[in-house]
Amino acid sequence: MSSTATLRSDALVLSSDPIHPANLICEFCRMFYQNGWVTGTGGGISIRDEDKIYLAPSGVQKERMIPENIFVMSFKSQEYIRRPLSLKPSACTPLFMAAYSIRNAGACIHTHSQNAVMCTLLFDEVFEISSIEQIKALPRITRPGNMWYSDKLVIPIIENTEREEELESSLRVAIEKYPSATAVLVRRHGIYVWGETTWKAKIYNEAIDYLLELAIKMKQLGIPTVKDV
Amino acid sequence: MSSTATLRSDALVLSSDPIHPANLICEFCRMFYQNGWVTGTGGGISIRDEDKIYLAPSGVQKERMIPENIFVMSFKSQEYIRRPLSLKPSACTPLFMAAYSIRNAGACIHTHSQNAVMCTLLFDEVFEISSIEQIKALPRITRPGNMWYSDKLVIPIIENTEREEELESSLRVAIEKYPSATAVLVRRHGIYVWGETTWKAKIYNEAIDYLLELAIKMKQLGIPTVKDV
Amino acid sequence: MSSTATLRSDALVLSSDPIHPANLICEFCRMFYQNGWVTGTGGGISIRDEDKIYLAPSGVQKERMIPENIFVMSFKSQEYIRRPLSLKPSACTPLFMAAYSIRNAGACIHTHSQNAVMCTLLFDEVFEISSIEQIKALPRITRPGNMWYSDKLVIPIIENTEREEELESSLRVAIEKYPSATAVLVRRHGIYVWGETTWKAKIYNEAIDYLLELAIKMKQLGIPTVKDV
Amino acid sequence: MSSTATLRSDALVLSSDPIHPANLICEFCRMFYQNGWVTGTGGGISIRDEDKIYLAPSGVQKERMIPENIFVMSFKSQEYIRRPLSLKPSACTPLFMAAYSIRNAGACIHTHSQNAVMCTLLFDEVFEISSIEQIKALPRITRPGNMWYSDKLVIPIIENTEREEELESSLRVAIEKYPSATAVLVRRHGIYVWGETTWKAKIYNEAIDYLLELAIKMKQLGIPTVKDV
Repeated sequence: MSSTATLRSDALVLSSDPIHPANLICEFCRMFYQNGWVTGTGGGISIRDEDKIYLAPSGVQKERMIPENIFVMSFKSQEYIRRPLSLKPSACTPLFMAAYSIRNAGACIHTHSQNAVMCTLLFDEVFEISSIEQIKALPRITRPGNMWYSDKLVIPIIENTEREEELESSLRVAIEKYPSATAVLVRRHGIYVWGETTWKAKIYNEAIDYLLELAIKMKQLGIPTVKDV
Repeated sequence: MSSTATLRSDALVLSSDPIHPANLICEFCRMFYQNGWVTGTGGGISIRDEDKIYLAPSGVQKERMIPENIFVMSFKSQEYIRRPLSLKPSACTPLFMAAYSIRNAGACIHTHSQNAVMCTLLFDEVFEISSIEQIKALPRITRPGNMWYSDKLVIPIIENTEREEELESSLRVAIEKYPSATAVLVRRHGIYVWGETTWKAKIYNEAIDYLLELAIKMKQLGIPTVKDV
Repeated sequence: MSSTATLRSDALVLSSDPIHPANLICEFCRMFYQNGWVTGTGGGISIRDEDKIYLAPSGVQKERMIPENIFVMSFKSQEYIRRPLSLKPSACTPLFMAAYSIRNAGACIHTHSQNAVMCTLLFDEVFEISSIEQIKALPRITRPGNMWYSDKLVIPIIENTEREEELESSLRVAIEKYPSATAVLVRRHGIYVWGETTWKAKIYNEAIDYLLELAIKMKQLGIPTVKDV
Repeated sequence: MSSTATLRSDALVLSSDPIHPANLICEFCRMFYQNGWVTGTGGGISIRDEDKIYLAPSGVQKERMIPENIFVMSFKSQEYIRRPLSLKPSACTPLFMAAYSIRNAGACIHTHSQNAVMCTLLFDEVFEISSIEQIKALPRITRPGNMWYSDKLVIPIIENTEREEELESSLRVAIEKYPSATAVLVRRHGIYVWGETTWKAKIYNEAIDYLLELAIKMKQLGIPTVKDV
């Protein structure tokens, strides 16, 4: 168990290295804010570095976060080893942990992207799209390498709950049921995307949002998102 | 009553502190301009710091404002304690004052957001949306804490008038009639949003604009904005 | 008549003052590029300072312009007093001159805004909108002061021609026929907007583009752009 | 054949000149990323400088590229004279080479623009648009000078393949069959655009994307993209 001194330690989050997890979380949040993905304190991101899980706090303006705001949790003990006293831990924490424990993810992104929300209103149990070049940016997971152009991308959609932490069990079920998915959509809420590394999580999130946006446009024009091959 | 010397005083608005109200007003206006919320001199923002009400001037390019352009009014005396001689006070001033006096707000934002204008063309007496995660960024006001996911957000819509100051009485009526609203839409005009602090007003404005934008997309696809629960 | 030495003079365009016309033209073009108004070398801007008319050149990437690229013409003699030898003068020059001579404008902006092009496909002889707050940012011209909220903004639409300079006569006719217009739309082409000063031309262009964008959204939803009052 | 030492040489890509091809590729990729054209590692760009072909690598985040990441190939020998050992060459390389060899291009751009993808879903064998001023930014190629306003822009659409390099033969056929085209669309994939110089390729790509976007809006409103004249 961590001492109060450790819980206040800045050494875990202060670094001059721009790709230190605490710096990357802040940089990504500024970028996600520009994209409308973390509007009004919504959304967040977590990065894993071996036993250390770095987490953006709850309820803060994501584009104004500084490394001192970051929580750090031990993956093994599931206890905070750094906890800013004036801030609340993110309600997404158990959801990020599911991606780390079930999929051995290196980073997990949660956004309130309007493209994600709209697709959960336009699709039923799963989001599906095929035969779009951008699909090749996504992993197949159950086999090595990325998806092919004509592969069908399937992202499960789970129902939202009143409290974010209540999503954990259905998220875990969806991750187990769709072993080749690298993301889960949450109805009327947003999306969780994870990857083996921080960069891959970022790339997957971008590529998926591109496909969600394209799918909405296709639906509006009556074009099926899954192509007969 | 203030002397002319006081009215010209720069000490009230010049500060090296980036979160001084005069600096924040300028920073927010630049940000709002990027979002298309204060196009062509429209819109504005006011911040209250105890007895001092800081106000952006009328008819200036909001993205080019500097602290010297800011008006300061005493909340108690309702008189200007700083008044840039070459500028006109904002016609929004009595509207901002309504939020300060009725709701004890800490800041008030006015935008010409196209999402706001469009929603006043698509909704009748009130804007309504429910069961969207982003709603949780908004306050319940009449009870402590924020709204729940399945709560219905209701924002009253008042009719526009030829002169902005003529909106005051209907705005006051709407604020009284909808005690849990933290915003009022103005038909074919825009929106007023306020909050307990500057940061909360900013977050509420962002979250509401996100919901207004989403509601337009839902309407276009024939999806009701209020969900049966 | 100007000497070759004068034609190469940089003194007319090099200034450390950020609001010198040559600097403002470059700054505005970068901003217009971000807005998609001068994509792919399209569009331009001209500023008048007493007898000197500053003009962006033809066929250059507007966002990469530097003051050395600017042409300067004498309003009185209609001859260039500075002419960068490697560049071509803008084909818009006679159109800008029409705004200067007929309306005594201080600046004139030309964009290929998609909102402008779309409105020329959705409206017939004139673009019309009324009862939108943003209209109040625009001048009445034939009477002092700005437009009222319920005033109807009318912008004439002229037919495009193969060569830009061939637009001059119909532009002049439109300016004369619509004495209260501060802009002319060109079918399938874009828009010309002018104002008494550089800042006013910028504000009018922004406010009009906002109204053009809003009108397209209203048309798509079957809402009339002119309101019965 | 190049020695290993040459293959690691940084001298080919490190320069303080901002318009050195390696610097321009990085700058353009950052700009294209902002436009959503190279989302999630998609897309790319190549510049030719006499015998040297500069190429962005495969599978990297295009907005974070640095000159050290650039591949350089000899046009004559078709062999790499610089090859970053940790990166993969772009699968677009044979497609860029087609533009260099058949059309003597100076630069070639490939994007995953959603406007391009949508137009390949809305048009059949070719994309066509006429009588839009922006067309005048594009070259006629088979005759000197640029297109006229009323000229019809025709861009061939080829079918996508599972592997990007498999596009080469149909791309070559399309380039030969449409001698006045400066671009080829790839169904459900994106677009290839080339030009005599780097700047012209950039301008053509921008002007074409503007026209693709406009064509989608016209289609949605039932307006034909080709005008009877």
